[in-house]
This record gives sequence, structure tokens and C-alpha cells, in this order.
Amino acid sequence: MPQGHIENHLSSSSFISDIVIGMSDGLTVPFALAAGVSSAVSNTHIVTTAGIAELVAGAISMGLGGYLAGKTELEHYESEYKTEAWEVDNLPEKEKDEVKEIFLDFGLSPETSQLATEELSKDKTKWIDFMMRLELGLDKPDPKRATKSAANIGGSYIVGGIIPLLPYFFVDTPIDGLKISAVVTLICLFIFGFFKSKATGQPVLSGALKVMIIGAVAAAAAFGVAKAFGA
Amino acid sequence: MPQGHIENHLSSSSFISDIVIGMSDGLTVPFALAAGVSSAVSNTHIVTTAGIAELVAGAISMGLGGYLAGKTELEHYESEYKTEAWEVDNLPEKEKDEVKEIFLDFGLSPETSQLATEELSKDKTKWIDFMMRLELGLDKPDPKRATKSAANIGGSYIVGGIIPLLPYFFVDTPIDGLKISAVVTLICLFIFGFFKSKATGQPVLSGALKVMIIGAVAAAAAFGVAKAFGA
Repeated sequence: MPQGHIENHLSSSSFISDIVIGMSDGLTVPFALAAGVSSAVSNTHIVTTAGIAELVAGAISMGLGGYLAGKTELEHYESEYKTEAWEVDNLPEKEKDEVKEIFLDFGLSPETSQLATEELSKDKTKWIDFMMRLELGLDKPDPKRATKSAANIGGSYIVGGIIPLLPYFFVDTPIDGLKISAVVTLICLFIFGFFKSKATGQPVLSGALKVMIIGAVAAAAAFGVAKAFGA
Repeated sequence: MPQGHIENHLSSSSFISDIVIGMSDGLTVPFALAAGVSSAVSNTHIVTTAGIAELVAGAISMGLGGYLAGKTELEHYESEYKTEAWEVDNLPEKEKDEVKEIFLDFGLSPETSQLATEELSKDKTKWIDFMMRLELGLDKPDPKRATKSAANIGGSYIVGGIIPLLPYFFVDTPIDGLKISAVVTLICLFIFGFFKSKATGQPVLSGALKVMIIGAVAAAAAFGVAKAFGA
């Protein structure tokens, strides 16, 4: 069943992509923010307060942003669908030429392309679906995608973001917190990068290293800039 | 030219989607973070330091994250392409059945489906392309997408994030900064939401309000949580 195959493929890859988006920013941004604040203040309570403010801000912004993006994708599909439906109703000859052109592009003979076009255009729903997928490259989005996306992105942001902040609760100075936070977070980024690469079929070792390096670069840059500015 | 149409459509929508991702998080997260920190400290210098650390952390994390996502999409396409190419070479009858099934699903008669399948399968490149688009729903990504994505997302995050932080540089107390920052940022979120909705063909007024409300909710939540925790 090609249709079932397509849907499984799409929904699993968008689930993974949501978790990856939330978790990689969740592990990276609160980690780097806390590192930056640590370079400029001497009170761990300020670091954890800023970290928690960032966790809440990031999870809501990314979660609701994911919700809106999912809604927009659905509405975009529906608006393009209406345009194609209107064209099929009102400019059927032009649309048939476009269908025939697509078949010709795939290497079908003019006779078969003509025949296939005539048969396809008997069912308007399938005709429009064909144009959506082959002229516009749009697959029908999952209608529940927006809500799932919001929960997956926001939730994984919080799970990821708590990890780099925890050490600051148990130490006396921000720099002590940063040392433990860096070790713990870089290990978690490596593990996360490993599974992310595995899930997306990438080379696991280089994938894990890349994710860890992004976190380290972001934290080092935030530390350096905040120290220079805070001095 | 259907092919040209498809490419314009995809590249412009991914450019807009990058700017939207960067700018909406850039306007929202530093705004909400600064609001949260303002609720807990009395020194504007701490707010701006935390804000700048967040700006650097967020731009690097999102920019490099966008780069990796673009690379992963390309590699995913290439890996699926290899699988399809292998199947076309080694299991041609099974793949022909899948092609025929797709034509039948579009309402073509068994005879035309058979004919179209035979003609399509004469050119392996077009055969694989057909399977990629109709069995897997995958369009070939732009190879330069990863680099463009990183620059667009990171750049628009910084542009968006500077706006809510600026007021804190010109006032004496964090709460005064927050008042100006909230007014300025909510206006900018509304304007941004307006153009975003226009670009994606959404109702502009409700779109602008939604974007503004997400920012307000994130900032209010970060303020409340940081105040409760910081007390």
C-alpha cells in the first residue's frame, strides 16, 4: 500500500524532527545562557533564575511557534488546494495540458500521456491530488500535526533544558556550576547527537560530535561575549 | 514550466520559513527572558548581560541547528534515493508493481497504468524520481539550503532579539526597561505577524494578533515563574 507507506514515513519523521528541534535547542540555549551569565555574576541564584526564565520563554515560544507553523502548513495546503480545484473547474484544458506535460516529463509517449491524462481527469479529486503532489510538491499534512508538534517541541525543550541548569543548584559559585554543567551537558549532547543520527540514518559518531560542538561553540561564545560586556 | 514553478515555490517558502523561525523566536525569547530576569533583579546591567548571552546562544544554536537540519534533509534524500535506485536495479518487477499501483490509485485504467508503467520504467532516472515523489513524498532539496538556512535563521534571530533588549540600556531600573520593552516588542511582534501572515497567505489581523499573544504569554510566564522562583 503506497499510501500507508507514505503516511508512516511522514508522521514518524515529523515526530523525530520535533523532538530533535526541541531537545537540541533545549540542551544548547539554557546551557549557553547559564554559561554566559556565570561569566558576569557571582551569585548562583541569578544564574538559575535567568535559566528558569529562559526555559519557560523558550518552551512557550518554540511550542506555540511549532503549533502556528503546523497550522500555517495546513492552511497553506488548503489554500493551494482551493486554487487548484478552481482551475480544474474553470480552466480544465489548461490543467489537462499541465498533467500531460508532467507525464511527458516522466518519459511517457505522447499517446500514453494523452490517454493517462484523459483517464486521470475523470475523477476531479484525484486530478487535484495529482496536481498538488506533482505540480506543487505538496503532500496533505496531518490535521493534528499542529497540536502534537507544540507538545513534542515544548516538552522536549524543557526536558533538555533542565539538565544544564541542575548543577547550579548544588554549588556555591557560578563558575563551579558551569564546570559541572559543561561536563554533564556535553555528555548529554553527545548521547542525544548519537541517537538523533541513528534515527535519521546518519553516521553516528560524526553526528554526535557535531551536535556536541555546536553546544560547546554556543556556550563559549555566550561566555566570552557576556564576560566582555559584563566587565 | 511545472518544474520551474515547483522550484520557485519551494525556495521562496523555505526562505520565508527561515526568516519566520529566526525572527519570531528572536523577538520572543530574549524579550521573555529579559522580562523574567527583570522580575528578580534590581540591576539593569544583569538584564542586558543575560539578554546578550541569550542572543549569542540562541543565534548560534538556531543558526547551526538550521545548518544541520538542512544537511540532514539532503542526506536523508540521498540515502532514500540510493535505496530506491537499488530496488529499481535489483527488484524491478516489485517496483513496477508499485508504479502501476500508484497509477491505478489515480484512477487510470489497468491498461493505461500498465502502458504508462512500461514507458516510465525505460528511463531509470525518471523512474526513481517518480518513486521518490509519489511513493515517499520527497522533493529534491536545494544543495545550498543548509548554508542559506543558517545565515537566514541566525541573522534574523539577532535582528529580532536586539529590539526587546535596547530599552534596558537607557533606563535606571529593570522594571522601567521592561515597560518600554513590552510596548516596543509587542508592536514589533504585531507588525512582524502582519507581514508573516501576508507572506504565507493567512488572514493578516488574526495572524498578527496570534504572534503578539504568543510573545505576551511567553513574557508573562517567564516573569511570573522567575519572580516566584527568585523571591
